Amino acid sequence: MSRKMMVFSGTSHPDLAEEIAALLDVTLGEVRIEKFANNEIYVRFLDSVRGAEVFLIQSLAGDVNEALMELLIMIDAAKRASSASICVVIPHFAYARQDKKSAAREPISAKLVADLLTVAGATKIVTMDLHQGQIQGFFDLPVNHLTALGVLSDYFAALNLEDPVVVSPDVGRAKVCKKLSDMLGVPLAIMHKGRPEHNAAEITAVIGDVEGKTCIVTDDMIDTAGTITAGAQALLDKGAKAIWLGATHGILSPPARKRISESAIEGCVVTNTIAIPVDRTCDKITVLSVAPMFAAAIKNVYNDGSVSALFDPDFEF
Amino acid sequence: MSRKMMVFSGTSHPDLAEEIAALLDVTLGEVRIEKFANNEIYVRFLDSVRGAEVFLIQSLAGDVNEALMELLIMIDAAKRASSASICVVIPHFAYARQDKKSAAREPISAKLVADLLTVAGATKIVTMDLHQGQIQGFFDLPVNHLTALGVLSDYFAALNLEDPVVVSPDVGRAKVCKKLSDMLGVPLAIMHKGRPEHNAAEITAVIGDVEGKTCIVTDDMIDTAGTITAGAQALLDKGAKAIWLGATHGILSPPARKRISESAIEGCVVTNTIAIPVDRTCDKITVLSVAPMFAAAIKNVYNDGSVSALFDPDFEF
Amino acid sequence: MSRKMMVFSGTSHPDLAEEIAALLDVTLGEVRIEKFANNEIYVRFLDSVRGAEVFLIQSLAGDVNEALMELLIMIDAAKRASSASICVVIPHFAYARQDKKSAAREPISAKLVADLLTVAGATKIVTMDLHQGQIQGFFDLPVNHLTALGVLSDYFAALNLEDPVVVSPDVGRAKVCKKLSDMLGVPLAIMHKGRPEHNAAEITAVIGDVEGKTCIVTDDMIDTAGTITAGAQALLDKGAKAIWLGATHGILSPPARKRISESAIEGCVVTNTIAIPVDRTCDKITVLSVAPMFAAAIKNVYNDGSVSALFDPDFEF
Amino acid sequence: MSRKMMVFSGTSHPDLAEEIAALLDVTLGEVRIEKFANNEIYVRFLDSVRGAEVFLIQSLAGDVNEALMELLIMIDAAKRASSASICVVIPHFAYARQDKKSAAREPISAKLVADLLTVAGATKIVTMDLHQGQIQGFFDLPVNHLTALGVLSDYFAALNLEDPVVVSPDVGRAKVCKKLSDMLGVPLAIMHKGRPEHNAAEITAVIGDVEGKTCIVTDDMIDTAGTITAGAQALLDKGAKAIWLGATHGILSPPARKRISESAIEGCVVTNTIAIPVDRTCDKITVLSVAPMFAAAIKNVYNDGSVSALFDPDFEF
Amino acid sequence: MSRKMMVFSGTSHPDLAEEIAALLDVTLGEVRIEKFANNEIYVRFLDSVRGAEVFLIQSLAGDVNEALMELLIMIDAAKRASSASICVVIPHFAYARQDKKSAAREPISAKLVADLLTVAGATKIVTMDLHQGQIQGFFDLPVNHLTALGVLSDYFAALNLEDPVVVSPDVGRAKVCKKLSDMLGVPLAIMHKGRPEHNAAEITAVIGDVEGKTCIVTDDMIDTAGTITAGAQALLDKGAKAIWLGATHGILSPPARKRISESAIEGCVVTNTIAIPVDRTCDKITVLSVAPMFAAAIKNVYNDGSVSALFDPDFEF
Amino acid sequence: MSRKMMVFSGTSHPDLAEEIAALLDVTLGEVRIEKFANNEIYVRFLDSVRGAEVFLIQSLAGDVNEALMELLIMIDAAKRASSASICVVIPHFAYARQDKKSAAREPISAKLVADLLTVAGATKIVTMDLHQGQIQGFFDLPVNHLTALGVLSDYFAALNLEDPVVVSPDVGRAKVCKKLSDMLGVPLAIMHKGRPEHNAAEITAVIGDVEGKTCIVTDDMIDTAGTITAGAQALLDKGAKAIWLGATHGILSPPARKRISESAIEGCVVTNTIAIPVDRTCDKITVLSVAPMFAAAIKNVYNDGSVSALFDPDFEF
Repeated sequence: MSRKMMVFSGTSHPDLAEEIAALLDVTLGEVRIEKFANNEIYVRFLDSVRGAEVFLIQSLAGDVNEALMELLIMIDAAKRASSASICVVIPHFAYARQDKKSAAREPISAKLVADLLTVAGATKIVTMDLHQGQIQGFFDLPVNHLTALGVLSDYFAALNLEDPVVVSPDVGRAKVCKKLSDMLGVPLAIMHKGRPEHNAAEITAVIGDVEGKTCIVTDDMIDTAGTITAGAQALLDKGAKAIWLGATHGILSPPARKRISESAIEGCVVTNTIAIPVDRTCDKITVLSVAPMFAAAIKNVYNDGSVSALFDPDFEF
Repeated sequence: MSRKMMVFSGTSHPDLAEEIAALLDVTLGEVRIEKFANNEIYVRFLDSVRGAEVFLIQSLAGDVNEALMELLIMIDAAKRASSASICVVIPHFAYARQDKKSAAREPISAKLVADLLTVAGATKIVTMDLHQGQIQGFFDLPVNHLTALGVLSDYFAALNLEDPVVVSPDVGRAKVCKKLSDMLGVPLAIMHKGRPEHNAAEITAVIGDVEGKTCIVTDDMIDTAGTITAGAQALLDKGAKAIWLGATHGILSPPARKRISESAIEGCVVTNTIAIPVDRTCDKITVLSVAPMFAAAIKNVYNDGSVSALFDPDFEF
Repeated sequence: MSRKMMVFSGTSHPDLAEEIAALLDVTLGEVRIEKFANNEIYVRFLDSVRGAEVFLIQSLAGDVNEALMELLIMIDAAKRASSASICVVIPHFAYARQDKKSAAREPISAKLVADLLTVAGATKIVTMDLHQGQIQGFFDLPVNHLTALGVLSDYFAALNLEDPVVVSPDVGRAKVCKKLSDMLGVPLAIMHKGRPEHNAAEITAVIGDVEGKTCIVTDDMIDTAGTITAGAQALLDKGAKAIWLGATHGILSPPARKRISESAIEGCVVTNTIAIPVDRTCDKITVLSVAPMFAAAIKNVYNDGSVSALFDPDFEF
Repeated sequence: MSRKMMVFSGTSHPDLAEEIAALLDVTLGEVRIEKFANNEIYVRFLDSVRGAEVFLIQSLAGDVNEALMELLIMIDAAKRASSASICVVIPHFAYARQDKKSAAREPISAKLVADLLTVAGATKIVTMDLHQGQIQGFFDLPVNHLTALGVLSDYFAALNLEDPVVVSPDVGRAKVCKKLSDMLGVPLAIMHKGRPEHNAAEITAVIGDVEGKTCIVTDDMIDTAGTITAGAQALLDKGAKAIWLGATHGILSPPARKRISESAIEGCVVTNTIAIPVDRTCDKITVLSVAPMFAAAIKNVYNDGSVSALFDPDFEF
Repeated sequence: MSRKMMVFSGTSHPDLAEEIAALLDVTLGEVRIEKFANNEIYVRFLDSVRGAEVFLIQSLAGDVNEALMELLIMIDAAKRASSASICVVIPHFAYARQDKKSAAREPISAKLVADLLTVAGATKIVTMDLHQGQIQGFFDLPVNHLTALGVLSDYFAALNLEDPVVVSPDVGRAKVCKKLSDMLGVPLAIMHKGRPEHNAAEITAVIGDVEGKTCIVTDDMIDTAGTITAGAQALLDKGAKAIWLGATHGILSPPARKRISESAIEGCVVTNTIAIPVDRTCDKITVLSVAPMFAAAIKNVYNDGSVSALFDPDFEF
Repeated sequence: MSRKMMVFSGTSHPDLAEEIAALLDVTLGEVRIEKFANNEIYVRFLDSVRGAEVFLIQSLAGDVNEALMELLIMIDAAKRASSASICVVIPHFAYARQDKKSAAREPISAKLVADLLTVAGATKIVTMDLHQGQIQGFFDLPVNHLTALGVLSDYFAALNLEDPVVVSPDVGRAKVCKKLSDMLGVPLAIMHKGRPEHNAAEITAVIGDVEGKTCIVTDDMIDTAGTITAGAQALLDKGAKAIWLGATHGILSPPARKRISESAIEGCVVTNTIAIPVDRTCDKITVLSVAPMFAAAIKNVYNDGSVSALFDPDFEF
């Protein structure tokens, strides 16, 4: 028995899949994916996957529900075609922010997505910078959880910013921002919506020192950029000298582009976990590639090598 | 313990849900359903469903993947909110035509949908005119499978058509058309793509007598209406006097409207299992309501009454 | 680790298993199968199956419930004996006609059988000409669905019949008969129980032209042959010149033999998916072997080769 | 919601079911059970079971595999017909002796049967005198395990036997025989196959005193009666005065009748957990009814009363 | 059918269970729980639970593994005794901090515990102040997640502290501390381990203003109190006037008592989710009761009332 | 792909694990196992197990619940770290005596343990001398069930005891003692609690001849040794010349040591399935090693060799 790796791409981010395949020195497998007039998705693998270790690359972004359903159908087809294993590579994991009940009678949609992937037939998961690490526990499958924090850290380090400080956009992100501040060896500040006194109007408060500093504001994702650009302005109001944004996932839903380009932000850095349409980007937005990390993870999953070096940087090895 | 019925509607076909609720003499429960900028769906039940027998009405049509994901999230939320049972009412069941592998390495998407509904937490299903009755077996849950054949039959009977014949648009639908022909007490004819001799070009053949007759062509759904309008023309070419179309599910994807209105078809009858946008309908298209059937089914599911009288007409009782 | 293929036969059709094993150039593994005085079945594998890829060949025919229970017990024993995988080869799949609810409060026994095989521990299925392809979807395991249509088609083509027409015995089989008619390049006709007018007695009607023709009537199985021989007579009454029968599965329950031998049928062709006792056959019945197809399928399942070339002939490749 | 108890009988032991129903003061529900020419079983409930608490009575005896398959199909039909719960009443549980691996590569068929019942949809089990109590643990469902030991004990006590001793037919039954000896307040003896010295031929040895005594030999079931009648003879050879046999399950496979009637045994007492055909019984065989115990158990299961008073007599209450 | 609520206590915190039962106006059910010489736990319910809605109260604290195993065995016994439902009330949920992989090849023990409870047979969960709300998503059962934040907030509000500020002991708790600061209408500060410059030794930094203020440091649990007392000292070093500690779960493992009593802390407030042995407490430690919240939750779970008013305070209602 | 065997030990019996590893000629893998102040267990594999066939050796003895929870956490960690398979080696299986319901409302804890191991992620089990072989059926995984009966038999045979007889300590162990008596070629006797007549006090009775003989009393485990030393005295009272004890599992809970050393027993032989602390043993207690059997079983599981030669001696091969 010779083992066989086969890598396929869904339609949500073919460029990233091509880049990963090139780094793996393989050709993407052929799969026919169509949408019928009634909006049903049709999938058929054109290459035999019998006995193969199948990797399906699909970012759950853009039309996230379409992307998810397409992925589930791909998994079903691969399972019924007698593949040996199905490793699902999800650069951006949708619904990750709905990871707990914040109000009565809400769903926990991130768990639902985990259950859907499992029942369809996925046997392993590779993903990056989940909104919360606890989402790993939503699966009973092995989850290889990569992080782009190193990529972002390297980028900001190379900028040689003057008097930098990492700023968390809210208290919930403080822990991850703390990691980045440790990686860069710079101080940490935290913004939060506060009230100077009881019953007063809520204002954006900043805990920590930002005056005269270059602020690096980071989050796991930048969606409409409303909160983060408002935060950037608040920092400037507190005397910050300059503002940079950084995030793993550049969703950049409208009006993110407008907000960023019209803001006083120096630059915004995201990675290519999501395909960013031309009309959602602008000069201030830089996109870094995480394809090398995914290629390395797939290689190690296939070769039974350790993936932990690609993990969260506060891992002990 | 007093039992409590609560009926909620997804966003795919609120009019039908309202109609069903009115017939049940209940008010639809309040549920907040939104779509975020990044296309993720957010659901929250605004009424407590703890201990309730929840009915969720959602037709899997229009943006079928959105509608399905919305339904799955609703189920998850109801499950986590301690509902006693979750009966999913799906007037039109998407992906029903992908119910077997017709080619190597295809999925069986209808089974996938059944598995997704089950893992999300559905406990019972009510649906209508599945493409194949075998799809009931895709579930290990009780499936209440209604049929609109009686509604269609009553409609055509009332037309008092001259010299009518039921015509199956292809060999695969022959069995259902046979049922309608028996209900109407009229003969049956069957179209198929045939070749007059080996290696000759394929043409649409008709088995059975249609000359001078009024043809009632029926299918489970009318999607783009391409095949069925071509078939109607073939019947006219064979001497048919007039053509009527009938189907349970009026998907009517473009260019169905154009094809139907430009054809020589007298009229096309569908039911309201799917919300039909104004720009997809025309004078020739009549929509019959199946709300009474769904209301009756929900009532009986709730009251533990027999549903079989609403079933497939070749059932013995 | 060297992989190891082991093939075992249940007691329902040892001749077919031997024929398949010979084509695979392997010896059937030794397994002790006994029936106690109280009718309980006892199974023990005499060869170690630890780590082996086990293939269990058992046709669910004859005493179908005994055959099924024997197979389930074999699967359980192989699972507990640490086999690496258990591929169940079922030339004839029992209960396939009970694949949907045709009346209220019926079971879907074909789904039940699928669930029983899965819970016992089967990991892959190989079978042939299921009553409906949808039964594949009853499994969440890979199902390799072979067809004997090619074998039947070759046989009839070689007969050089005069003016042949393929006739479907009822509307439900029209789709499969259409495939055979395309393979043979001959026309199609369809029988159905019809009423010339409302309230008249039901008679067997024929749609399509059979007068003066040689009719090839095919079904997936021939059980008591009651309907099919009555249909044959109806065709002769309509002026057909000669009648041939063909089917994959030759159940031939009494009084099939008597009916066939006393009918005006020229010949009846089935395959060896089922062991046919001598007292159920006669001169008019020809049995073709499908062992080569099963041997090829097992070989490819074992070698991770594509099985699709052995599939349904309307598959695209 | 009013709760509804519905009791149905399979075909394996309708007399017992009738007797139980009479004691419960209910009428057995109507269910159509047929066997097709090809030996497939067909089941359809003729009464609506929607929302009902269904009890299915089926002894797994006679053609045990047929009886089991019939029961599984009944469960499937009840499940799909929206019954509220399915309590399976199995007076005699087949395959109970295959409850562990006694040799390599054997199945554990009793566990398989438990898994089959569970996957089909059973929600509760009522059964009697399982070969080993551990079989209860094969289920994750509630199992109500009744015993006929009290019925047997009462019978033997009423006989006023002279100088009685309970004799276990082998070491494996010693524990249960000990219970009966305690209930009757008489001594215990144990037979076993022993060798007087190494390499000598195996003979039936008796541990304990039987000389001049009336031996009550009991087992959970009497199948072919070979071992137990040979044991009876061995006891007589050791000087026993008279021999009585007792068992819960009277399988009485041939040649049990002949062996018992030709033996010196005074009498053989079994219960009606199994339907005993006339040609399997004789004057020496007495059949006691356990219908009152099953009726009481069903009543308590339905009324949520305690069943433990019907349990194993060494239960503490 | 009358419904029946039965409440039982494990051995880990009988006082809390008694208090809850008294508030519910019920008597705790009788259950025998013993430990054998070999440390195996033995459980037996002395009251019938057939058909009852069973509530099992067990805090996973003290000997957490013993407490967990005892709970799992109680669940198993209740399931096999035909209880209608099993709601597990876990005031303190052990292993909650192991809710994600922080290093390669770690378990996610909180998910494991969720899976163990589910497989044993739990049907609903009531718990309080999980380390992360995401743990709710580890279950596919309804989880009723209470919070003691209101109880703590009321307590601190009543103290009328001078110039109060809520201080998060690290960045990870910032979000919850933010909630408390909003409830109290006071500012927020956050401690973290920081380095003044790259390669310098790590020191405890404080973001936000604490000078001259009364600090309320809160966490979800106080275990050995090492970090939190060190943090308190750091706050005093930064000029804080006084320090109060607050937490839901008072684990208070040695040497917590010593550390707290020897520190300059004014007072430490916890709740009674965990039984605190006398030798683990001291004058400075106040224990508030959450029994009313659990009683209310159990009541509403039983009566199908809404539980959300007892939930996390940032819930919208 | 090269396969990789990795063997790890839990903390319950590291000496046995070392001995097994030495016999396998492998080094135990490194795993960090700690207990936090709050008694939660922390596990982390220090070597990569990705793609490895992992064997986890853990005897469920001593603090059995701690040992079990530690094992479950190890399984969870190995599963999430992408191991290829997880074979759990359990020399002593706790809770084995709770293998059925002996009283109403008891759990079946041995089944619970089986379910916990399965849900955590175990894929194969190796264990020894289960209290009842039926426990194998509690798993749907392959269970390799070894026996130490051969080791004990060899030991006693080498003693050349005068006039030996194997004595079962109660009727429940009669079957296993019978096996040992056959292996040694010596007679069998059985003790049981009996009453000479109705209502008399219970005394220990002996069935079979022990006068003037050397009694070998064997059980599966020796826990507090209360029953077995009382039984030994009863045998001496009946005229036995000398008493030896033998058992696979030497739990030896206090006061076993005192009881044994103060009794007239000649010697007590157990194996090293459990780590016996120095203060639980004494001169009269001999410990035999079963490490060679476990090493052989692991080797064969890894190499797909037959394990049956290591099984129960009454297996046929």
